[in-house]
Amino acid sequence: MSSAPKPTILYHGARSARTRAEILNTTADLASAEGLEALTIGRLAAELRMSKTGIFAHFGSKEQLQLATVEAAKQIFLAQIVQPSLQKPRGLPRLRAMLENWLTYVENIVFRGGCFFAAAAAEFDSRPGAVRDEVAALSKAWLTALRDEIAFALREKHLGAGVDPTQLAFELHAFVQEANWAFKLFNEKSSFLRARRAIAHRLASASRKSGPQRRTERKKK
Amino acid sequence: MSSAPKPTILYHGARSARTRAEILNTTADLASAEGLEALTIGRLAAELRMSKTGIFAHFGSKEQLQLATVEAAKQIFLAQIVQPSLQKPRGLPRLRAMLENWLTYVENIVFRGGCFFAAAAAEFDSRPGAVRDEVAALSKAWLTALRDEIAFALREKHLGAGVDPTQLAFELHAFVQEANWAFKLFNEKSSFLRARRAIAHRLASASRKSGPQRRTERKKK
Repeated sequence: MSSAPKPTILYHGARSARTRAEILNTTADLASAEGLEALTIGRLAAELRMSKTGIFAHFGSKEQLQLATVEAAKQIFLAQIVQPSLQKPRGLPRLRAMLENWLTYVENIVFRGGCFFAAAAAEFDSRPGAVRDEVAALSKAWLTALRDEIAFALREKHLGAGVDPTQLAFELHAFVQEANWAFKLFNEKSSFLRARRAIAHRLASASRKSGPQRRTERKKK
Repeated sequence: MSSAPKPTILYHGARSARTRAEILNTTADLASAEGLEALTIGRLAAELRMSKTGIFAHFGSKEQLQLATVEAAKQIFLAQIVQPSLQKPRGLPRLRAMLENWLTYVENIVFRGGCFFAAAAAEFDSRPGAVRDEVAALSKAWLTALRDEIAFALREKHLGAGVDPTQLAFELHAFVQEANWAFKLFNEKSSFLRARRAIAHRLASASRKSGPQRRTERKKK
């Protein structure tokens, strides 16, 4: 049995994968700024100086191209935010790293449109379909990861007993999204300082045995 | 001098203004869900069953149509959120009303795409031009109005002396935007409860003479 054709096939496969990766680098950046709906095959052909047929051969449809772009952005999010956080001990140190890495990724303009998923959520939240479902599932997974880390920190007594993990995750997540919003809209670097202060104060408050949340709840009784 | 032609002219003017208002009701709702870039004259002509020429006569260009839509959304924001807040006494009561009216406007789905300005900001933050400038200016004006009300509350001693108005405005604004994001993306009504709790706890903390913010600052010294 001859293995002669294999190298050629492998070469084609590797070149194809590289081209696909190159296309997706461009699409994720473009989509963060102009939206996933701006990813038309014609627009990309012009941007990448490729034939429409060439791009179509890689993705087949606009929706497939959008889904592949979301997947590429997910890989970048995992590599830049999630993976480095896993180096930190679980509980409060890892929670702080998750938030700090997320802020740094926005601050360093990994995507020129800011947080890819914040932009994609705003664009697709009212457009039912596979792209919306995937963006919602990934956004939910990140919010859940923050909540689970808070719950771990609570069990380890890094946080006060009155803390509600879902509530605290909502608030901390809000601060990073607000920094992304303010930075993109007003071009104010100070929004990162605001978010870091908000996170530090909220975690300091949640770390005390009886946080403000618990005290307020007691008052209601 | 005969005044005979006047009624006809007035009738045309009034009809024209009514048609314009009808078009803008549709465009603001459509733009909140699908984006201001979806407002093509062809799309609107189909949606409103009007001629392209008729719509073009009202607005002249896509950008003029987008700017008129932002203006229409601003009038709704003023009527539903700002004006009712002005009925409350200045300081903490008015601040609470501003946030509560804003949450209620998102919760009641005044626009099917959630907060019109959150959607417009995400869409236009990376697109330089008159639309972006107007959305940024209006978003900034609202953030500044919240900050000024906090500063007033501080002078009246409704809030503790350690409160930084810009910082607190950032945090409270973040909670409402997060509720809008979560409601639109996950269709979870509970996001309004989360935002209301976050606002109540943050204001309770800021109302104490020495809030967590001040205590943390002291620790640093």
